Amino acid sequence: MNYQEILEEIQEEVRHMLPAGKVATYIPQLSSISPHKFGMAVQTIDGDSFQVGEAFEHFSIQSISKVYTLALGFTFEGEKIWNRVGLEPSGTTFNSLIQLEYEQGIPRNPFVNAGALVVSDILVSHLKDPQPSFLDFVRQRANNTYIQDDPLVAFSEGQAGFRNAAMANFLKSFSNLTNEVEEVLKFYYFHCSLSMSCVDLANGFLFLANKGHCPWTNQTVLTASQTKRVNALMLTCGTYDAAGDFAFNVGLPGKSGVGGGIVAVIPNRLTVAVWSPGLNKKGNSAAGQYALELFTTKTGVSIF
Amino acid sequence: MNYQEILEEIQEEVRHMLPAGKVATYIPQLSSISPHKFGMAVQTIDGDSFQVGEAFEHFSIQSISKVYTLALGFTFEGEKIWNRVGLEPSGTTFNSLIQLEYEQGIPRNPFVNAGALVVSDILVSHLKDPQPSFLDFVRQRANNTYIQDDPLVAFSEGQAGFRNAAMANFLKSFSNLTNEVEEVLKFYYFHCSLSMSCVDLANGFLFLANKGHCPWTNQTVLTASQTKRVNALMLTCGTYDAAGDFAFNVGLPGKSGVGGGIVAVIPNRLTVAVWSPGLNKKGNSAAGQYALELFTTKTGVSIF
Amino acid sequence: MNYQEILEEIQEEVRHMLPAGKVATYIPQLSSISPHKFGMAVQTIDGDSFQVGEAFEHFSIQSISKVYTLALGFTFEGEKIWNRVGLEPSGTTFNSLIQLEYEQGIPRNPFVNAGALVVSDILVSHLKDPQPSFLDFVRQRANNTYIQDDPLVAFSEGQAGFRNAAMANFLKSFSNLTNEVEEVLKFYYFHCSLSMSCVDLANGFLFLANKGHCPWTNQTVLTASQTKRVNALMLTCGTYDAAGDFAFNVGLPGKSGVGGGIVAVIPNRLTVAVWSPGLNKKGNSAAGQYALELFTTKTGVSIF
Amino acid sequence: MNYQEILEEIQEEVRHMLPAGKVATYIPQLSSISPHKFGMAVQTIDGDSFQVGEAFEHFSIQSISKVYTLALGFTFEGEKIWNRVGLEPSGTTFNSLIQLEYEQGIPRNPFVNAGALVVSDILVSHLKDPQPSFLDFVRQRANNTYIQDDPLVAFSEGQAGFRNAAMANFLKSFSNLTNEVEEVLKFYYFHCSLSMSCVDLANGFLFLANKGHCPWTNQTVLTASQTKRVNALMLTCGTYDAAGDFAFNVGLPGKSGVGGGIVAVIPNRLTVAVWSPGLNKKGNSAAGQYALELFTTKTGVSIF
Repeated sequence: MNYQEILEEIQEEVRHMLPAGKVATYIPQLSSISPHKFGMAVQTIDGDSFQVGEAFEHFSIQSISKVYTLALGFTFEGEKIWNRVGLEPSGTTFNSLIQLEYEQGIPRNPFVNAGALVVSDILVSHLKDPQPSFLDFVRQRANNTYIQDDPLVAFSEGQAGFRNAAMANFLKSFSNLTNEVEEVLKFYYFHCSLSMSCVDLANGFLFLANKGHCPWTNQTVLTASQTKRVNALMLTCGTYDAAGDFAFNVGLPGKSGVGGGIVAVIPNRLTVAVWSPGLNKKGNSAAGQYALELFTTKTGVSIF
Repeated sequence: MNYQEILEEIQEEVRHMLPAGKVATYIPQLSSISPHKFGMAVQTIDGDSFQVGEAFEHFSIQSISKVYTLALGFTFEGEKIWNRVGLEPSGTTFNSLIQLEYEQGIPRNPFVNAGALVVSDILVSHLKDPQPSFLDFVRQRANNTYIQDDPLVAFSEGQAGFRNAAMANFLKSFSNLTNEVEEVLKFYYFHCSLSMSCVDLANGFLFLANKGHCPWTNQTVLTASQTKRVNALMLTCGTYDAAGDFAFNVGLPGKSGVGGGIVAVIPNRLTVAVWSPGLNKKGNSAAGQYALELFTTKTGVSIF
Repeated sequence: MNYQEILEEIQEEVRHMLPAGKVATYIPQLSSISPHKFGMAVQTIDGDSFQVGEAFEHFSIQSISKVYTLALGFTFEGEKIWNRVGLEPSGTTFNSLIQLEYEQGIPRNPFVNAGALVVSDILVSHLKDPQPSFLDFVRQRANNTYIQDDPLVAFSEGQAGFRNAAMANFLKSFSNLTNEVEEVLKFYYFHCSLSMSCVDLANGFLFLANKGHCPWTNQTVLTASQTKRVNALMLTCGTYDAAGDFAFNVGLPGKSGVGGGIVAVIPNRLTVAVWSPGLNKKGNSAAGQYALELFTTKTGVSIF
Repeated sequence: MNYQEILEEIQEEVRHMLPAGKVATYIPQLSSISPHKFGMAVQTIDGDSFQVGEAFEHFSIQSISKVYTLALGFTFEGEKIWNRVGLEPSGTTFNSLIQLEYEQGIPRNPFVNAGALVVSDILVSHLKDPQPSFLDFVRQRANNTYIQDDPLVAFSEGQAGFRNAAMANFLKSFSNLTNEVEEVLKFYYFHCSLSMSCVDLANGFLFLANKGHCPWTNQTVLTASQTKRVNALMLTCGTYDAAGDFAFNVGLPGKSGVGGGIVAVIPNRLTVAVWSPGLNKKGNSAAGQYALELFTTKTGVSIF
């Protein structure tokens, strides 16, 4: 199978439907992106890579960063991490403080905002200098030392982030945040503000397709079992309230961000990253999700 | 009827059961108060006053201050205030963020914490210098220029107040807070930290027994109708999740605070304030509520 | 003060605004009533009675019957009744199964549907022949042996009552219903289907204005303390989610029904019943509530 | 790879830990089963079959039947079925009426009880004679005309099923049940009461491993796409509130029942059914889930 041809076919089929969905508008840095953007990149564990469209253009990875924080937090805490955050799907609209109150401050999983805040807290506790250390971890995974955060994005999100601040304070009231609320929020907005390209993300998630081993650094980031756990979590909880729909339509573990990026993992084979800023009603990239559906259809790789 | 004798009888009957309940422990300034304290004061609209026990000793009025903020906010906003805060009982355990989320950021009433935060926000908007202006308002109502806030109490509450901070941020996320979260919280903790005695409170609530007219300053603080509204709210929502119980057992509009104070109003007749720091399970002064029950029984003034 | 004149003034002021509100439509027997109907009756404990409009016309008392079931249940169980049903306001929209689940099958108070079902269950357990026995109790209170239930109303409500059936089964799953679900529902719909006039209701609630003593039968139905409890509950929970509003605007303990009736109690003085089928948004008779506001304004009897 | 050897190894490793978990006790027919029972069966799409332990012994399939009702309902309604039931995970403890109320009567997915009731309602509408027709469908899938329901189980469940009755009435109140509540419940308890063996289930789920094609009857039960949908749903929602855990530990689409059975599907390869009545805290067979973990470990078939 020729991945390059497949990517080009997908680009063709997706292009004409652009702009699909609606670009996120809650901060100016996201709302100003053209909805006509589309890029896609594949990276195999055998070392082949393929790209199409704006695959090298940077965008805000947003919630995709939660996979990195989880992976790094996992290396520090091991299975103990599940004492502070669950690993079950969240059941949607209950994304929110209702569920957190009902479950006494233990977020449902590491990908809902509350769960990601707890993981951020864990990293703030373990890392001497959280921001550069985390950035370094991401750069190593992606094999690209030029990856940067975007302080303007982080600042804007902080300005608009009253619900996250509510959540962080609420977690603290349940003693499930050990550092200062402000510090955790700051780190949270930092890691969400990273700018990466499809190529960066396809490279940067390869360790999850490779039993936890990072080829560029030759490091074992996670054990095979931990890797399986992260992938299972991406499948069941990686795409907000559309996990069931994504599981069916794409059939791969994946993580989306409100910046329009989605990365999916085909264990033992490859990673595929896509970017298009227009979002569907569930908050996932509309053209991006469709492109991944086409990818699994054309390659026949769905797990179901 | 001789109020002095009645107060002395009550003191006698209550004394032997002290310490009743459990002193609040979430900040050191409250937990260090002796549970043996008991004071009570009556102030009639005819100008008579009666006291017993530690009726002149200062204590932290806490949530009782929410009646003052509501009264003052009411003078600024009139009936418009009900666009931002409801006037129905809260149904208890749902005191919390669940209800706020369910009702899209409109707190149930001005006496639940979320509602008091909205009222604080209103005062911060209207008062040029919120803290001294509010203090002045309370001093005038109570006819005592020596009333002070307790900065240590305010500071300690802020330190422990993650749930309030969560609430304030949550309100802000629903656009039901116009000022900065920090500023509103600061003012909220300020007004809760006021130190007053039973005598101060009996004096200070007299305008509510007097159709809104404050005798000491000869000012009409609220209209008769607004006064009726505040009293009705105290009856249905003034004692946390025990409003139904308090309505039955005491049968008067009243407001309690976690510092152990309770003030009740007998419209057109008198006010009665009581203080004893041990709290019952619902967070109201145990001996205080019992003393008020005895007071209504002995005077026969219950409204039911 | 001349009550007859006051009633006539009220009739005059209310008539021109009829039809106010919207007649209940969920069963044909209610939806067919003319919204122009209006009646009002006063009964004093001194034996005087006053009427205006259609004060002798029968209508479906619906939820007003819950005061009778509570009173009768109270005579059987005494204070033990509060082990199975709460006595705090319900906090509105949470009228429903959410609250029941959250509080493990203990309804908030005897006037929400779930609470009334539990009280019905208590009566089914205590009464050998529940329907005639209960009817007899109501007839004695109202001093009218001609009062009847309306089987067609009961049948129609049963047909449409899936939420009540859900509630009853849910209560049963929490073991807070001892009899068969069907039997409890049947009795519940029976007591809601009673047809009474304003005069019947004014007479029939007089024992609650009279310390529990029923003048017609010379029986002590409830103790003075139990009577106070029922009145307090009517004030805090008697008018659905509008208890706070009703407490302020009317300022009396009262109970409304979806048939357009409202009865209010002025302890130690009188009862006043009003009927007009058009309902406001909160489910209380629109003209009826306004008539009661006028009544308390004109007589100056509000408790606040 | 030799599946027979693998099954025998698993039996060996599991046997010594029996009885694991706690047998369901809410009806006598389940509570009387020995917790020492263990059986397992594999059926490949190539026609090979393997068994170990009590693989031919019948047990109550309970919730496993919901996969059959969904499959059959899917053939009648196609994608329209998703108008009446969702396809996202339920977020656990919220299994219940809270979520149903919050989401206005649309159950989260077809495997929570409320969702299965809606699917039952659909079948009652489409099947002239629901019970024998459904039984026939299951027999054909499992290639065994001797499969029977257990009326005693169905009766006992009905006796204890107040929460299900609450749910059905609640669905009806939202107009998401078209047939009589009693009729739907009766059919629901019927299909949960089917008695099948591990061999029956391995055979009976083979069409889901085979792109929807049933080898015994040579019928296309579901399209390939519909089959994928059912498998995706089993992965994300098939094991109650443990879907995340099951996805990680077993890594296969699967459906469990409170009778101790679990069936899992490896698309395009095989089905594997296991039975052991002791349940873990999440309500899934303890030894059964462990056996499936061992199976995926030993065969290396996990999808992650």
